[in-house]
Amino acid sequence: MDLVKSLQCVHCGKEYDPSVDALYCPSCGYNDGILNVVYDYDRISKLFNPVSQKECRVYSMWRYLPLLPVQDAATIPHLQVGWTPLYQAPLLAAELGVKTCYVKDEGRNPTASFKDRASSLGVIKALEKKAARITCASTGNAASSLAGFAAAAQLPATIFVPKTAPEAKIAQLLIYGAQVFAVDGTYDQAWELCMEASAEFGWYNRNCAVNPNLIEGKKTVSLELVEQILALGKDMPDWIAVSVGDGCTVGGVYKGLWEMVHLGFITKVPKILGVQAEGCQPFVTAWKNNAPLTPCEARTLADSIAVGHPRNFTKGLQAITQSAGAYIAVTDEEILAAMKLLARKAAVFGEPAGVAAAAGVQRAVHSGIIDKQESVAILVTGNGLKDIKSAVKAAGAPVVIPPSLNAVKAIVQ
Amino acid sequence: MDLVKSLQCVHCGKEYDPSVDALYCPSCGYNDGILNVVYDYDRISKLFNPVSQKECRVYSMWRYLPLLPVQDAATIPHLQVGWTPLYQAPLLAAELGVKTCYVKDEGRNPTASFKDRASSLGVIKALEKKAARITCASTGNAASSLAGFAAAAQLPATIFVPKTAPEAKIAQLLIYGAQVFAVDGTYDQAWELCMEASAEFGWYNRNCAVNPNLIEGKKTVSLELVEQILALGKDMPDWIAVSVGDGCTVGGVYKGLWEMVHLGFITKVPKILGVQAEGCQPFVTAWKNNAPLTPCEARTLADSIAVGHPRNFTKGLQAITQSAGAYIAVTDEEILAAMKLLARKAAVFGEPAGVAAAAGVQRAVHSGIIDKQESVAILVTGNGLKDIKSAVKAAGAPVVIPPSLNAVKAIVQ
Repeated sequence: MDLVKSLQCVHCGKEYDPSVDALYCPSCGYNDGILNVVYDYDRISKLFNPVSQKECRVYSMWRYLPLLPVQDAATIPHLQVGWTPLYQAPLLAAELGVKTCYVKDEGRNPTASFKDRASSLGVIKALEKKAARITCASTGNAASSLAGFAAAAQLPATIFVPKTAPEAKIAQLLIYGAQVFAVDGTYDQAWELCMEASAEFGWYNRNCAVNPNLIEGKKTVSLELVEQILALGKDMPDWIAVSVGDGCTVGGVYKGLWEMVHLGFITKVPKILGVQAEGCQPFVTAWKNNAPLTPCEARTLADSIAVGHPRNFTKGLQAITQSAGAYIAVTDEEILAAMKLLARKAAVFGEPAGVAAAAGVQRAVHSGIIDKQESVAILVTGNGLKDIKSAVKAAGAPVVIPPSLNAVKAIVQ
Repeated sequence: MDLVKSLQCVHCGKEYDPSVDALYCPSCGYNDGILNVVYDYDRISKLFNPVSQKECRVYSMWRYLPLLPVQDAATIPHLQVGWTPLYQAPLLAAELGVKTCYVKDEGRNPTASFKDRASSLGVIKALEKKAARITCASTGNAASSLAGFAAAAQLPATIFVPKTAPEAKIAQLLIYGAQVFAVDGTYDQAWELCMEASAEFGWYNRNCAVNPNLIEGKKTVSLELVEQILALGKDMPDWIAVSVGDGCTVGGVYKGLWEMVHLGFITKVPKILGVQAEGCQPFVTAWKNNAPLTPCEARTLADSIAVGHPRNFTKGLQAITQSAGAYIAVTDEEILAAMKLLARKAAVFGEPAGVAAAAGVQRAVHSGIIDKQESVAILVTGNGLKDIKSAVKAAGAPVVIPPSLNAVKAIVQ
């Protein structure tokens, strides 16, 4: 267990012993000094390699235990997370204008979003630290995910959300028994408040940007994707498309792919397409201008990526540059159209941020970033049931009729 | 493929050749003459038995293909359905007052309900019949499930729901591209209208009560439950608790258990606890009075079991009598309390009908039907995200605060 070698600051490069009692680089602070978990890959490769994995019968994210910072498997919560389905989606490929398309449905996780991969790790690390309480700030999914995993571990949780978070996500928090503060402000304000409260009360901090362990959970989506594609006997797709808010998800996606190259499963990291909403595209702007990231206002219905001040900008930018990928922005209208498209052509119902990646692929094909002969995998990061208002916007209302066959006939014929 | 021997009427006992072009017994009609799919179990037992299953690496309902009426595996939709997690829930057991408790989370299916097991079969049979369109009436889950699987198979679907169905379920239908009629009437009226329309336009009928293939999909939950319990090295629970609407689900649960006895996996069928809402308990009344089932009005917030006129009453009653189980009713308040209990003690967020089974266990323990020394498995049939209004009723609203640490301190300290 726990083959972690060090924690390395992404800003100054300094390495710390894994036992250090800090979540971020003490020299650089939490704005710049996000840490990266560095493993002893030589030892890992003896336990985890293309041969050993063929025998593995664990169908959850815990099939990657050698690659995760878990000290004691007894702390793993019971909720079954990961090993979500990967679908081949030829009809969607035709609509998006690419040769081949895969959809990985992360809405199938326990609390219906990708964030469960991170929350499971967050709870484990809080238990390792014998924390009395865990906290996070979230636009919604990380919060509801943490609430579910905290319930599983019977660990008290305090959660900060902007009061504008979708009703479904707030209901999830409360039903799982978390203490919920709906902040009358933006996500960015909720985040700062959570950081202050965590410091003030000594609560364990699950915020993905400042807690390097969370991205380790997130990277498992890439480990799975690689194994699932190889199991189909297919080549890795040229592109992996993922929506981007704080930068943590795309950072995790990159790290998992990099590890699978490093451990001999694949030969190169696919290009990553980072997708943002036009009303909130700080990563797109920074990447296009090759400039430092500047915070902006957040105006998009895709609440999970409505992050004007991304906290994990270094990892979020590196994921795209180091994979030779691209950043792209899409409109809210394109996101709503993608919601219908994914449901109707691949039978996967994703929330706005969950389907934004598909909208991004379409835009990237139109603008020549993705070639029509290339293949793409799309990560659908959250279930559409989490944001019904947007689904209704996308799909309209049903026809109301009296209970009579004539009423049906009048419409059908 | 397709080791079906005959279709037998549950009312008159007459057997029909599987190729018969009728969904119900032509002599008895669809009110009484529900058919049961009868298999050639001798041949099946050579393909499917406790030894063969140990080698099976298919982790979906299709690991039970020999026990399903599927003629051509090429018609199986791509959505991954079944093999949902089974959790041991010791904290919930303590709360419910039983020795051991398992929770099977059916909300993890593709459209977030148990009904996906049936819809997958419905779509397959429609494709076999080369139907141009498929239809059903539903309180919500069967509808959204059918819409999802129809999208997966690119089969047009027309769906009848009472216009009072939860917004989330209706949004699912529309986003998947189904034609939706929101009937200004009860579920029972929507059901009759669907039957008329199906006859009038020749649409394939997915209604579970009259289409015997659907229960075959539903029974897979029991096949899985048995395999999962055995894989844990545990004894089968004394009771399986499930909420009851039309009678199809409980009928399927019984059939799967019966088959696992018949095929040598277990030695006897556990007792089945059928749970209804006090405001709609036709099965409870009929079972208590040992009398024919009488339709009633439906008054409960658990929309998925708000069925005043259950169509599959014979199978629904047989499941309880033949398993030596019991029927019980719970109040809406007990259902809402169970919603919180399951989320907080087992970290599973179920919709009202999905958690009603847990409320029923608690009531059955209080009234001495279930002994404190007995063990129970609870089927949570739908995800709580499908009915956020009820979740909010159960869990309340969050505390709204300004973005200041003092506001947090005032509440925390």
